[in-house]
Amino acid sequence: MMSQNRLNELRGQVDEINLQILELLNKRAQIVTEIGKVHTELGNSFYDPAREAQMLQALEMANQGPFSNETIKALFREVFRASLDLEEKQAKAKIKVQRKSPDERTIITMPDGTQIGNSHFTVIAGPCAVESYEQMDETAAVLAARGVKFLRGMAYKPRTSPYEFQGLGEAGLKIARQVADKYQMHIVSEIMDMSQLQMMSDYVDVFWVGARNMQNAFLLKAVGQQQKPVILKRGFGSTLEEFLYAAEYIVSSGNPNVILIERGIRTFEKWTRATLDVGGVAVLKLESHLPVVIDISHSAGRRDIALPLARVARASGADGLMVEVHPNPPVAMSDSKQQLYLHQFNELMDELDKLEKQLAHS
Amino acid sequence: MMSQNRLNELRGQVDEINLQILELLNKRAQIVTEIGKVHTELGNSFYDPAREAQMLQALEMANQGPFSNETIKALFREVFRASLDLEEKQAKAKIKVQRKSPDERTIITMPDGTQIGNSHFTVIAGPCAVESYEQMDETAAVLAARGVKFLRGMAYKPRTSPYEFQGLGEAGLKIARQVADKYQMHIVSEIMDMSQLQMMSDYVDVFWVGARNMQNAFLLKAVGQQQKPVILKRGFGSTLEEFLYAAEYIVSSGNPNVILIERGIRTFEKWTRATLDVGGVAVLKLESHLPVVIDISHSAGRRDIALPLARVARASGADGLMVEVHPNPPVAMSDSKQQLYLHQFNELMDELDKLEKQLAHS
Amino acid sequence: MMSQNRLNELRGQVDEINLQILELLNKRAQIVTEIGKVHTELGNSFYDPAREAQMLQALEMANQGPFSNETIKALFREVFRASLDLEEKQAKAKIKVQRKSPDERTIITMPDGTQIGNSHFTVIAGPCAVESYEQMDETAAVLAARGVKFLRGMAYKPRTSPYEFQGLGEAGLKIARQVADKYQMHIVSEIMDMSQLQMMSDYVDVFWVGARNMQNAFLLKAVGQQQKPVILKRGFGSTLEEFLYAAEYIVSSGNPNVILIERGIRTFEKWTRATLDVGGVAVLKLESHLPVVIDISHSAGRRDIALPLARVARASGADGLMVEVHPNPPVAMSDSKQQLYLHQFNELMDELDKLEKQLAHS
Amino acid sequence: MMSQNRLNELRGQVDEINLQILELLNKRAQIVTEIGKVHTELGNSFYDPAREAQMLQALEMANQGPFSNETIKALFREVFRASLDLEEKQAKAKIKVQRKSPDERTIITMPDGTQIGNSHFTVIAGPCAVESYEQMDETAAVLAARGVKFLRGMAYKPRTSPYEFQGLGEAGLKIARQVADKYQMHIVSEIMDMSQLQMMSDYVDVFWVGARNMQNAFLLKAVGQQQKPVILKRGFGSTLEEFLYAAEYIVSSGNPNVILIERGIRTFEKWTRATLDVGGVAVLKLESHLPVVIDISHSAGRRDIALPLARVARASGADGLMVEVHPNPPVAMSDSKQQLYLHQFNELMDELDKLEKQLAHS
Repeated sequence: MMSQNRLNELRGQVDEINLQILELLNKRAQIVTEIGKVHTELGNSFYDPAREAQMLQALEMANQGPFSNETIKALFREVFRASLDLEEKQAKAKIKVQRKSPDERTIITMPDGTQIGNSHFTVIAGPCAVESYEQMDETAAVLAARGVKFLRGMAYKPRTSPYEFQGLGEAGLKIARQVADKYQMHIVSEIMDMSQLQMMSDYVDVFWVGARNMQNAFLLKAVGQQQKPVILKRGFGSTLEEFLYAAEYIVSSGNPNVILIERGIRTFEKWTRATLDVGGVAVLKLESHLPVVIDISHSAGRRDIALPLARVARASGADGLMVEVHPNPPVAMSDSKQQLYLHQFNELMDELDKLEKQLAHS
Repeated sequence: MMSQNRLNELRGQVDEINLQILELLNKRAQIVTEIGKVHTELGNSFYDPAREAQMLQALEMANQGPFSNETIKALFREVFRASLDLEEKQAKAKIKVQRKSPDERTIITMPDGTQIGNSHFTVIAGPCAVESYEQMDETAAVLAARGVKFLRGMAYKPRTSPYEFQGLGEAGLKIARQVADKYQMHIVSEIMDMSQLQMMSDYVDVFWVGARNMQNAFLLKAVGQQQKPVILKRGFGSTLEEFLYAAEYIVSSGNPNVILIERGIRTFEKWTRATLDVGGVAVLKLESHLPVVIDISHSAGRRDIALPLARVARASGADGLMVEVHPNPPVAMSDSKQQLYLHQFNELMDELDKLEKQLAHS
Repeated sequence: MMSQNRLNELRGQVDEINLQILELLNKRAQIVTEIGKVHTELGNSFYDPAREAQMLQALEMANQGPFSNETIKALFREVFRASLDLEEKQAKAKIKVQRKSPDERTIITMPDGTQIGNSHFTVIAGPCAVESYEQMDETAAVLAARGVKFLRGMAYKPRTSPYEFQGLGEAGLKIARQVADKYQMHIVSEIMDMSQLQMMSDYVDVFWVGARNMQNAFLLKAVGQQQKPVILKRGFGSTLEEFLYAAEYIVSSGNPNVILIERGIRTFEKWTRATLDVGGVAVLKLESHLPVVIDISHSAGRRDIALPLARVARASGADGLMVEVHPNPPVAMSDSKQQLYLHQFNELMDELDKLEKQLAHS
Repeated sequence: MMSQNRLNELRGQVDEINLQILELLNKRAQIVTEIGKVHTELGNSFYDPAREAQMLQALEMANQGPFSNETIKALFREVFRASLDLEEKQAKAKIKVQRKSPDERTIITMPDGTQIGNSHFTVIAGPCAVESYEQMDETAAVLAARGVKFLRGMAYKPRTSPYEFQGLGEAGLKIARQVADKYQMHIVSEIMDMSQLQMMSDYVDVFWVGARNMQNAFLLKAVGQQQKPVILKRGFGSTLEEFLYAAEYIVSSGNPNVILIERGIRTFEKWTRATLDVGGVAVLKLESHLPVVIDISHSAGRRDIALPLARVARASGADGLMVEVHPNPPVAMSDSKQQLYLHQFNELMDELDKLEKQLAHS
């Protein structure tokens, strides 16, 4: 019983010290905010590791325990980080792709009024690669009949081996443009290097930056300095944090119209080509106001689970899905195991339509 | 032009040889089937690596190219594997957990008629661990009001450190039983070692085998030799193939009532505790007739994405979901970041109800 | 220039506040240490989340910025954690497997004087599984001739499928014992369930806990309550932290003689069976005083890189290596691709001998 | 006994069929080789999926079991693949980076005679990034004194966030060149985009392609079309197969002087920044004749295990190591936790020197 009383007394002392520390932390934060303003005037970076090292050394010399020097340094490093956050928050806009309020969302509007990121669920579809006019035309006819407005028109294929099919190049872009015009669709096409930007602009409505180029800063800045929307694919070995920062490269270069596409990450599991990170999609929707689309083809690497994955994409809170469709998948020049037959695509759209009424208003 | 003619001629020759090889392969397969029967009589294993080694050696000696010895051996190894499959298929039932027809499904029926694996979507819920009667009672009241029939009543907690809370033990089971009886619910509880089987049988309705024990063959066989249903959790580092074989240990020991639970796998991503393998769930439903449940708590490790993950679970084709719910998550003795508040659980059920009508018949 | 002066002035103020915070933190730490003593008297856990929640609430109410409530709570959570560490450090011994001084090392001595963990590099070898007396005898003769003192005598094999070879059981142990006695070697053998402990003790010198059982708390405690040394294998999906805590289960149960074995972790890479975490071995040697051994067979899954991996193991600072050796690998009943031929084992020992003189004294 | 006789008789029949299949396979291979020549004349690709689909259909129609159509198709797909390999082998050189004989090795010779890939172990060192003349000069003086010939002179830093330090650019290259000339060293520097090639060529001796650009085909081809050696870093989410194919992009563009650098892959383990794939290095040395270097800084992300990792690199069969060294790591503008202090670098070289005599001749 005496122990309990003693406990309460000690706890009271701790409570008081807590409040004193709180007061000092906030006083310190105010001064640091002042310092931030001076840094801005001087054109300095806020982060000054030498200054931090000097403060830590002073603390280390003054420390008499019971906390060890390591603990004290760790605690103050947290204080430094928090202060730095504050400086940055005060002095300039925070990370642009980050959601600032629960209902903030980027809605991208195409010239014909089609939108991505609004309450409508967007389907992006088409073959893995442009192979011929007939192939594109046959596919687009089916997609257009189901209301699809975004057509894959891939003419440059980043391939593992230099000896694999690398795409038709500009000839493929011409085919894609022709077919898209016929069916009033938008062409989505991968850009692999910033040197292609000028030429591709004549054919393409939405630029696609692939998984292998997610951290190609030159390319990100280049597509950020033009005005067509950009679909940015998550690297198969990249964290969500890196993904958002890659988008920030584009947005901070001037182009706010970025669509994030989750395509599965690499894991030890072998029955699917990658592991679709659907929890990551939910987190992206919390953290960012950008539209997020799920690639149900590359994540699975197999067409036999396309239907459940389409339902999952629809239910996940994502703004759309991307699916590969080909008139004759077994003879496709790439990704033959994952592209849907045309009739399978129609089944998938039936499935989505069933979910639509229910979820559109949820 | 001559080249094209020559090509057609050569292709005709290849077509003919293909058919000859086909005939020989099937003739070989018939004989091997005979051999399989003899092996069964003799009580031998079908797989006889020494015999295979001897056949490969004979082929190597006879081979005169142009195929290299390595290629010839690789091709014949495929033939051996196919033949072995055939022997096994003929002589004994294949893997028991494997789906043999598209509509085959295991439906598990509890004594009160509650089912898992039928068209109804099952919710399993409750706190991470039994902490007190009040905690269980307060939680179960809310769950029961929403029609939940399966209550987590975890009394043994496998923990990373021996110094962490290890569960209340049999005292916890008693509390769980008492509360479950009050609300007419079934207790789901983790068994960590086969020595606990007898005692736990008095309290528990469904045995839970945790991720850390997914390949504990002794435990799997023990729960396979009793008749209560078993929930088997995928190891965080285990492939789908290993997961199904672990279930096979239980089923082949005599207990067909196994529920698979996907709980996320370990990856490099850090914003979620694990990466929910929703594509894996779709594959499991293709490959196996067993019910599959998605654990939306451990996969995420955070409660702020529980709603989208619940919708995803519902849409994925899984037979149910598992979610941790606690009257006061911040003071929970384990998993405090991922357990739902009671009001959040009600929101989750509202969300599921909205989806229910639509998907139940899809 | 004025800006620079202003900066220096503000920095001086920050320096002063830093020292005030430091003083308060240490004052707080002293009181918390007192509280820790009271908790020990009362038999309480040090960690009291409800108390923490209450302190955070008080701070939140008192906070007037500029730091946000989230930041203040995050900073104080760090303080709580540091204080908790201090309480634990004061009141009881820290984690037992953790190295307390740079030269602390556990050296395990067998009845015949053979040691593991001293300056000598230990080789553990033998076939994946005991298959016959001849197989064991032929292997052991070669191993013994090279001075190997620890023989794999695996009679229980945890296998993915219930239909694969599960080991010879007690008959296998008898063979292993007989052969080990003939060549004066120690038998290392896997225990899969604590029910086997009594029986296996008659045959086995060192217990082996496999990767699949690394977190089987019942088994860990059981081998911790007997006195024979235990080799603990890292789970293929387990972190180093979990690995050390699993060892702590054994050591805290009373058995200090634990050997850690790194066997590769699961990754997306397919050209090796697992990815040997050699950096992890270096970290384990920093963090723990226990001997660490590298399994060069299961990590690679292929025998053609055994030589470089043996050199790597020797150079890594590990205390030994484990390698599978079989008189006729292609007909082995398991792991046929990774077991070494006897002549390859001799080459491996030659390689190690070359390194030995150099590294033994480094 | 009768069973055994019957078994032997059936086995004899199988042996005979095996030889008949062998003969047909080789006859088929000869014809396919002919077809390959015709394809070359016609300028066709060897891979013709439509033709394969047609052959499979013919086999399916002719198949009468007992092998299922699926099995037959799987077996013939293997035959097709083997035949394709043969066609490709005949008609053109195989993958250029692949080792054709056990002693084939690429040795790269710099203008001053310094070599990489010969029996000498190469050390590449320097700070993470060029920060100032003083920093480079102070570092290079120490490195040069230890015989290091390759200096990191990184002026373009690919960073996760656009707001992090991105390098000094051309000003940094000038500093690096100046310092390298003073100490007669070679500058190794990262190129991030092919547009930098011309300008960088004036300063740089060896181009470095970073992990984020490993599959940037445009950049790979660009550095493949100039003659300075290229260090290619493995992507943190890339397989060994992809790594070798990325090197093939460079070599097949005309530049044979490629050095592979393994820098750790992404896994769930958190105590190191990445998981060094030392088994992968051993496999690379088997598969390819290119020099392989181990990056002991980025793989670990911590300097306290640099010594054991340096020993590991030396013992692994790699041709060299890369290590980050900085005069004052805590104030480095990037990677401050992993860069070595100058005195630590000297210790590391002492350690390597000890191993050198022994391993140089092994």
